Amino acid sequence: MARIQMYDTTLRDGSQGEGVNFSLEDKLQITAKLDEMGFDYIEGGYPLSNPKDTEYFQRVAEMDLKHAKVTAFGMTRRKEIEAKDDVGMQALRDSRAPVVTIVGKTWDLHVTEVLRVSLEENLAMIADSVGFIKSCGREVIYDAEHFFDGFRANPEYALKTIKAAADAGADIVIPCDTNGGSLPEVITKYVDLVRSEVNVPLGIHCHNDCDLATANSLTAVKHGAIQVQGTINGIGERCGNADLISVIANLVTKKEGYSVLLDNKLHNLTELSRYVYELANMNFRSGQPFVGSSAFAHKGGMHVHAVNRIARSYEHIEPEVVGNERKVLVSELSGRSNIVAKTTKMQLDNDPELLTRILEKVQDLENEGYQFEAAEASFDLLVKKVAGTFKPHFEKIHYRVNVESDNTHEPLTEATIKLIVNGQQEHVVGEGDGPVNALDTALRKALCPAYPALEKMHLVDYKVRVINSAEGTAASVRVVIESRDEHKVWSSIGVSENVIEASWLALADSVEYKLYKDEGTILS
Amino acid sequence: MARIQMYDTTLRDGSQGEGVNFSLEDKLQITAKLDEMGFDYIEGGYPLSNPKDTEYFQRVAEMDLKHAKVTAFGMTRRKEIEAKDDVGMQALRDSRAPVVTIVGKTWDLHVTEVLRVSLEENLAMIADSVGFIKSCGREVIYDAEHFFDGFRANPEYALKTIKAAADAGADIVIPCDTNGGSLPEVITKYVDLVRSEVNVPLGIHCHNDCDLATANSLTAVKHGAIQVQGTINGIGERCGNADLISVIANLVTKKEGYSVLLDNKLHNLTELSRYVYELANMNFRSGQPFVGSSAFAHKGGMHVHAVNRIARSYEHIEPEVVGNERKVLVSELSGRSNIVAKTTKMQLDNDPELLTRILEKVQDLENEGYQFEAAEASFDLLVKKVAGTFKPHFEKIHYRVNVESDNTHEPLTEATIKLIVNGQQEHVVGEGDGPVNALDTALRKALCPAYPALEKMHLVDYKVRVINSAEGTAASVRVVIESRDEHKVWSSIGVSENVIEASWLALADSVEYKLYKDEGTILS
Repeated sequence: MARIQMYDTTLRDGSQGEGVNFSLEDKLQITAKLDEMGFDYIEGGYPLSNPKDTEYFQRVAEMDLKHAKVTAFGMTRRKEIEAKDDVGMQALRDSRAPVVTIVGKTWDLHVTEVLRVSLEENLAMIADSVGFIKSCGREVIYDAEHFFDGFRANPEYALKTIKAAADAGADIVIPCDTNGGSLPEVITKYVDLVRSEVNVPLGIHCHNDCDLATANSLTAVKHGAIQVQGTINGIGERCGNADLISVIANLVTKKEGYSVLLDNKLHNLTELSRYVYELANMNFRSGQPFVGSSAFAHKGGMHVHAVNRIARSYEHIEPEVVGNERKVLVSELSGRSNIVAKTTKMQLDNDPELLTRILEKVQDLENEGYQFEAAEASFDLLVKKVAGTFKPHFEKIHYRVNVESDNTHEPLTEATIKLIVNGQQEHVVGEGDGPVNALDTALRKALCPAYPALEKMHLVDYKVRVINSAEGTAASVRVVIESRDEHKVWSSIGVSENVIEASWLALADSVEYKLYKDEGTILS
Repeated sequence: MARIQMYDTTLRDGSQGEGVNFSLEDKLQITAKLDEMGFDYIEGGYPLSNPKDTEYFQRVAEMDLKHAKVTAFGMTRRKEIEAKDDVGMQALRDSRAPVVTIVGKTWDLHVTEVLRVSLEENLAMIADSVGFIKSCGREVIYDAEHFFDGFRANPEYALKTIKAAADAGADIVIPCDTNGGSLPEVITKYVDLVRSEVNVPLGIHCHNDCDLATANSLTAVKHGAIQVQGTINGIGERCGNADLISVIANLVTKKEGYSVLLDNKLHNLTELSRYVYELANMNFRSGQPFVGSSAFAHKGGMHVHAVNRIARSYEHIEPEVVGNERKVLVSELSGRSNIVAKTTKMQLDNDPELLTRILEKVQDLENEGYQFEAAEASFDLLVKKVAGTFKPHFEKIHYRVNVESDNTHEPLTEATIKLIVNGQQEHVVGEGDGPVNALDTALRKALCPAYPALEKMHLVDYKVRVINSAEGTAASVRVVIESRDEHKVWSSIGVSENVIEASWLALADSVEYKLYKDEGTILS
């Protein structure tokens, strides 16, 4: 089995992405997670660029990593200076990282027009920098920036830069498609060319500007690259880096003869993807290959029908292999098969007339902006309502939410709710950090005496989506609330022109679901 | 120049995507837009599946399309019935579409286990269905479902299905990677095989389950496919279809010798992408290749520095070619170059001390959850504030927002605001469909007497993002508001634990920006 090294640069190149921002603690946690999975290299940052990165390298040196080597990233020395006197080189040396990644210029245009040094001086900068770090006893990875553009523009000079790095002792050279503009045939051509001319191991570093980063990375491996550089979820500048999630999943499930990560870690891929999104404060991409929440979701009635018979008929791999799961969606396109699949557990499939009414209700509500795909709790309640088995645990008489702000304090938020619970009127008031939090507080206050189990339930996520944004603030909004107790996570939905009302509807569904679930009657 | 036909199935396969839902009017508008650009085929729907699709074909037949042919999609006839007696075949015939796309089974597993017919009957179903539609005088596109899985499982039988379609008169055969599980080398192998065995034009239909749909589509074209089926923005079931945006941009900007769309329409690609997202009620994907709002965004200080000198140094194509634009981002990673680039118009580059203070302020606010990347109006005001040239046009004393709901009416929302405007106190009340709308109404009421130009300004988008979702409803929220007047669109931002306060902050910035802009002093 040929080892294909996974080099993760989520913490450095990934953090160049729009909207990406990791704290020091985030970076340390991601490092630990990647190490557990068996990533070979973790590029932690650029020690000279900011104090957070400097501190990262000192903290990570104290961690007990099992498999991964941490690498520090930096540029070649500045012009006309000795490597040992360059502050960047010194920062790399002082970083305590066992591996240093040095990026240097391959493309003559960049040498003369951006760096503004002579072509000869650039070769000396590469050789000196690699040589200096090697003399400090470190492993050196040489990132050849703009490798493919450089080879297209001036192959002779580009080759000299690679030879300069290799001759100075670089342990591996990484052709970088820095601008992301190369097609697979270009990758093939120049990786082959360098392999035939220079005797040094090669890797690959791609960007996704042409929507080809995964294909280009796989192509390079096919042509002999032994290391793939990329990021988790493909986050990174512009269109992002190669998504290591896709690269890993393809190498393991679609190819033979490669060893990647530690054994049996592939089924942690979905968890890893979501963990990084969470720490990066980014939304999941539902359609993301392999790990997206829709990656194994079936909506078309015909597909659902077939998947029920034989899963592989419409699934290229088993979702469990990458830690993902199958999902059957409900929508106006669903044939009866979807509703049957979702309601099998309720044993409604012997009542075709009821199934038709459920389908009609789903279609009506989706026209108003509901989406039951992401709100299974509300869907289960809807089935009960259509079937006539829904008996509400409480009845709303009235609510009021008030937010006041002056210039001296934080805004003050108060919610009052009047409900009928078990035939008795409850009229309560709650406060919170915002209107939804205040409503939630008041609702629990009114219900907990009758239903003490609600104390174990809490909200874990709250999403707001403007449905018809063309109308500005008067547009409808869709609120999805995710709740959990000790046993389960569930999602509920509300739609209204008023964000407070939409939140109320979702909150109320979330509580009803919890109560039915605890009674064991949500499915009947 | 070899014509590569673009076959768009956004309206049919795209609408299988999670959360995608087009109205009849949406479908007609997208049809017109695709026709204008020079798409060759537009698959409008599945006439038998729902009344909306049936009506679509009647309405589209009345449209005056310049270039595109509309196609109706359907399956082969059911088993043991004559094609002319099959309701699906009849619906295709009656659709008035000049082209019919028939999908049939290639994979023996699907034939025997999903359809549950004999292998021979499936061949007859293909031949009869293609033959019947040809006899109705229509052009027939034959979609060979699970082509690649079928050929891997039973190449001999798979080939028979293709021959059945070709012999019955299909005008073109489309190998479909229905489950999206094939690598480029698999595409190459079986497209070559069929080309050598069957004399019929070939196309390609890919899905993105391996993150390879664009690469696979380009590979098929390289190996002789003359038609690419896909969707705008790659929307579609699971991980989506091949994104025609990426396919088109690659074929035109990276390859030579192909004719795609109408001449000079490539620069409408970004607009087309956003138009479809808008009608599908989906968020833009900022990192989308070629057309994403970040596709040409530069954040790293080094990159910004270089792009300022020579754009192509860090850009694989000129953004204008696909109708996109360059963007310089402000964030803690920005070196001085980014701030200089953004503030060049303000001529602050001769004040290094001020630039440092701006950078520090940006870093502080980003730690609180601000993102100036998407809020240029708030950034421009921030520069004024740090520079000491910000003189507010109004001063908030107090606001109050109240939402009340009982069981008899829509919820009632009222906002009161007390402001100082030009030394005078204004105390006003407004109502609206929700809290933000009510605040906006009240704010205008207070300010319009002094600043009548505000009547020309309105809100066009309102986005809410929970920043730290792990804390549920008590998490911070980031509100971004997009506003416009007759001349310009601008975005402002607010962050708070309270969604109402965050909205207020963004609203206030939006109004201040408008007033400074009209005075011509936003840049000083």
